[in-house]
Amino acid sequence: MSTLTQSRQKTPLVVRTIKELRETLARRRSETSGLKTGFVPTMGFLHDGHGSLIRRSAAENGLTVLSIFVNPLQFGPTEDLDRYPRDEERDLKLAQREGADIVFLPSVQEMYPRRALTRVLVSEVTESLCGASRPGHFDGVGTVVSKLFHIVEPTRAYFGLKDAQQVAVVQQMVDDLNFNVEIVACPTLREQDGLALSSRNVYLSPQQRVEALVLSRTLQQASHWSKEAGITAGQLEERVRLALSRSPLASIDYAELRRYPSLEAIEPQQQLDEALQHSPLLLALAVRFGNTRLIDNAILSMKGA
Amino acid sequence: MSTLTQSRQKTPLVVRTIKELRETLARRRSETSGLKTGFVPTMGFLHDGHGSLIRRSAAENGLTVLSIFVNPLQFGPTEDLDRYPRDEERDLKLAQREGADIVFLPSVQEMYPRRALTRVLVSEVTESLCGASRPGHFDGVGTVVSKLFHIVEPTRAYFGLKDAQQVAVVQQMVDDLNFNVEIVACPTLREQDGLALSSRNVYLSPQQRVEALVLSRTLQQASHWSKEAGITAGQLEERVRLALSRSPLASIDYAELRRYPSLEAIEPQQQLDEALQHSPLLLALAVRFGNTRLIDNAILSMKGA
Repeated sequence: MSTLTQSRQKTPLVVRTIKELRETLARRRSETSGLKTGFVPTMGFLHDGHGSLIRRSAAENGLTVLSIFVNPLQFGPTEDLDRYPRDEERDLKLAQREGADIVFLPSVQEMYPRRALTRVLVSEVTESLCGASRPGHFDGVGTVVSKLFHIVEPTRAYFGLKDAQQVAVVQQMVDDLNFNVEIVACPTLREQDGLALSSRNVYLSPQQRVEALVLSRTLQQASHWSKEAGITAGQLEERVRLALSRSPLASIDYAELRRYPSLEAIEPQQQLDEALQHSPLLLALAVRFGNTRLIDNAILSMKGA
Repeated sequence: MSTLTQSRQKTPLVVRTIKELRETLARRRSETSGLKTGFVPTMGFLHDGHGSLIRRSAAENGLTVLSIFVNPLQFGPTEDLDRYPRDEERDLKLAQREGADIVFLPSVQEMYPRRALTRVLVSEVTESLCGASRPGHFDGVGTVVSKLFHIVEPTRAYFGLKDAQQVAVVQQMVDDLNFNVEIVACPTLREQDGLALSSRNVYLSPQQRVEALVLSRTLQQASHWSKEAGITAGQLEERVRLALSRSPLASIDYAELRRYPSLEAIEPQQQLDEALQHSPLLLALAVRFGNTRLIDNAILSMKGA
C-alpha cells in the first residue's frame, strides 16, 4: 500500500473555529518548513466533482484543507439557502476517501459574528450570466472567498470549471488585490450520461433528470457547430437556444457566448473563427427545471472545444 | 553602541516590484523561522509621525517594511494627487534613521498594471467625516491597504491616530474579512506649538501656519469643556465650531463628535458623561486654509482625554 493511499485513509481533522484552524495550520507549517497548502472551498453535499478537486489538491500539496460552508451572503432572498442540501457525515467520508487533511466546518455565527460592513466587489466580469440572474451573488462569493483565503492562507485554491464565471471572478479578484494564491481551475465532472455533477441535481424529479441531459447534449452539439466555416456568434447562440427550447420542462435563464475569462460580449455577427483568434469563448447555459436551476458550460478554443 | 542602534543605521533595501518584495520576504522568513513582520504603509514625504510608527515597528518586530505609495485610488478628481509632495531621497534617509529594513516603492503601473475591477468597500464607518467630504476616498484606502497586506503579509501594521477614521475603517475591514494582521494605532505627533504633523503642512503660508494652531488649541480646550458637569454633545460641538470660526483664514469642513471606533452619531442633547459610559468619543476636525485641508482629532474617554 503506497504512502499516498495510506494518507488518504487517515481521518481528517474536523475544525469548527477560525482560531483552532489558524493554530492548527501554524503548527503544521512550523513542523514542515515550506509546506504547501491546497484549499478546496465548498458548500458541502459533496459529489465526485468536489472529490476531483480534493484529489488534485492532495496530489499537489503537502496539506489539503477542505471548507464546507453554505454562505448566506451569496444567496438572494428568494433563493434556495434554506433548502440547500446538507449531509455532514457523508461529506466527511468523501473528504477522508479523497485525501483531505483538515475539514473546516464553521457555523454562520463563526464566519459572521456581527453585522459585517465590508464587501469585496468585482465589477464587469460579475455583471452578465449568473451575475445578472442572481444580483449580489458574486459580491457574496468575493467576500467569503476573501475571508477564507485570509483564514487558510493557501498556496493553491481549487475551483471547478462548472462555475466558470466564478473561476473568472475569483481570478480577477486575486489578480486585482494581489492575493498570494494560485487559482487552479479543474474540469467539470459528469455522470456517465453527460449530466454535469451538481449538489442541486438531487432536487430533480425523474422526468426532470432525463430532460436535464439537454444541457450537456446541446453543449456537445455546439462544439461541432462551432467548427462550421463562417458560423457567427449569433447563429450559434440561436441554434443553442432552439435546441434547449425543444425540452418541454426546460426554461432558459440564459444561453450566451462570451469571451473567456473577461466575459466581454461578442457581436452577434462576428464569425467564431475570428473571435477565437483573440481569446477562448465561453458558451454558458443556465436552465430551470421547476424550482431547480442548473448551469453548464463549454469553453471553446482555437483548436475546438 | 547597541545592536538596536547599529541595525538602525543599516541602509534599508529599496524594492520597487511586487515580485522582488515577495522573494525578499520569503527568503528572510525562511532564514528566521517565526520572523515577525511590522508594516508601515505611507504616502511618503515622511515626517516624525511616520518616524514614530517605523521606530515602534522596529522595536516590536524582527523585520520592518515601509511602503511609500501615493495611491491615486484614494484621491478625488479635484484633490491634490498631482501636487502631493514627494521627496524620495529624504524619505529614504528617515527610513534608515528610524530602522526600516525594507522600503517598498512601487510605481502606479506596478500597483495597478491594468484596469482594476475589484474594490474593497466598507460601509457605515466610511460614510461620515472624511468619508462624507471625500467621496470614494475610503474605497481607495480599503482597496490599496488590502493589496499591500496581501503583498507584505505582515504580522502587525502601524497606523497613526491623526487619521482616526482611517484606523477605524482599516480595523473594521480587518475584522470583517479575517485579515491575519494586528492593527497598531499610534498617537498623533505634534510640533512644539501643537500643530499635528502632516505631509500637507508644507502647503501652508506663514500666516496660515500660525492660524492652523486653532485646531490643536481648540481640541485642548474641548478636552477641558468635556469635563464640565452636564455639558451635552451639541453644546461641545457648538463651542468647538465657534472657537474654529474665530480664525479668519479657517474654513470649517467638519467639526463633529462621534462614537469611536464605530463613528455612530450622538444625539446633540445627550450628556457627555452619559455618552462616555458606552464608548470613547472622537472629536474630529477638518479645516481648510486656502487649498490646504488639515485634519486633527482628540479621543475622549471616561477618564478624560
